[in-house]
Amino acid sequence: MASNTFGIREGEKTVELPAKTDAGVYFIGRIRTPWKTRDACPKNARESDAVCIVEIDPRFREGLKDVETCSHLVLLYWMDKSPRNLVLQVPGHYGTQHGTFALRSPARPNPVAMSVVRLLRVEDGKLVVSGLDCLDGTPLIDIKPYFSSTDSVPEAVVGWHQRKD
Amino acid sequence: MASNTFGIREGEKTVELPAKTDAGVYFIGRIRTPWKTRDACPKNARESDAVCIVEIDPRFREGLKDVETCSHLVLLYWMDKSPRNLVLQVPGHYGTQHGTFALRSPARPNPVAMSVVRLLRVEDGKLVVSGLDCLDGTPLIDIKPYFSSTDSVPEAVVGWHQRKD
Repeated sequence: MASNTFGIREGEKTVELPAKTDAGVYFIGRIRTPWKTRDACPKNARESDAVCIVEIDPRFREGLKDVETCSHLVLLYWMDKSPRNLVLQVPGHYGTQHGTFALRSPARPNPVAMSVVRLLRVEDGKLVVSGLDCLDGTPLIDIKPYFSSTDSVPEAVVGWHQRKD
Repeated sequence: MASNTFGIREGEKTVELPAKTDAGVYFIGRIRTPWKTRDACPKNARESDAVCIVEIDPRFREGLKDVETCSHLVLLYWMDKSPRNLVLQVPGHYGTQHGTFALRSPARPNPVAMSVVRLLRVEDGKLVVSGLDCLDGTPLIDIKPYFSSTDSVPEAVVGWHQRKD
């Protein structure tokens, strides 16, 4: 089945999106990575130890106070190159149909990605991190401290994915 | 120092927000919780085993296919009652000043909360979950499968918070 990078594959399904959005996001910075095309991005952040730079707009830099005391952060960013109307998808590397909300695909009604990154250091209002797999220039929308007490669940299972192993 | 629920405290700092937002989000559902006021919400999701209901709009329900195979999910939701212009905050329960990006406060440039929840069951296009601490009626913006391989970091440390223990 032919498809372009973001084309619709057999087994995929789109819906009509609402006529308008309900709230607005500000891009608060940009993520600098070594990957200039989607094909060049690692399939999974664990495949890469690449060092990436998170640039924060000067307006918001004071919000970084004490971030340097965190070993890990949650980054939220906006995958603005993705279609938003897919509810069923057949990811190329799996070849089977799954609901959008059972996938981490960038194609989703709100293309907000969540990545847990290791913070290497803070320099001049920039974060130096590892653990990202996104395109160079991706817009940043939030930085949060990672609390193992609430965010870490080592025993969590994604059943459909486990069966593919 | 007097303050109302979302007032500015001594030691807090606001910035002027950009003139316009850069992208729009759709509210894809609503979260039903037992808490009708901010004061009633648990301070931390771990303090509560309350069962909450995540309602997905019919338009997007097919996207739930295979979500039932996940033990845990990441929910992203929109904390639409919070100011967005704070860069330094003095949370009442800590009493010390921290940057917005070192806090999980709902007050942030983009009020997107991230919670890891346990999925109890899926019923008629609704998710029954535990591990939430948000207001009843909070708008939902995304559901993602929680992958322990990339999302779980048991050894993560938030230095400024640890020193408060």
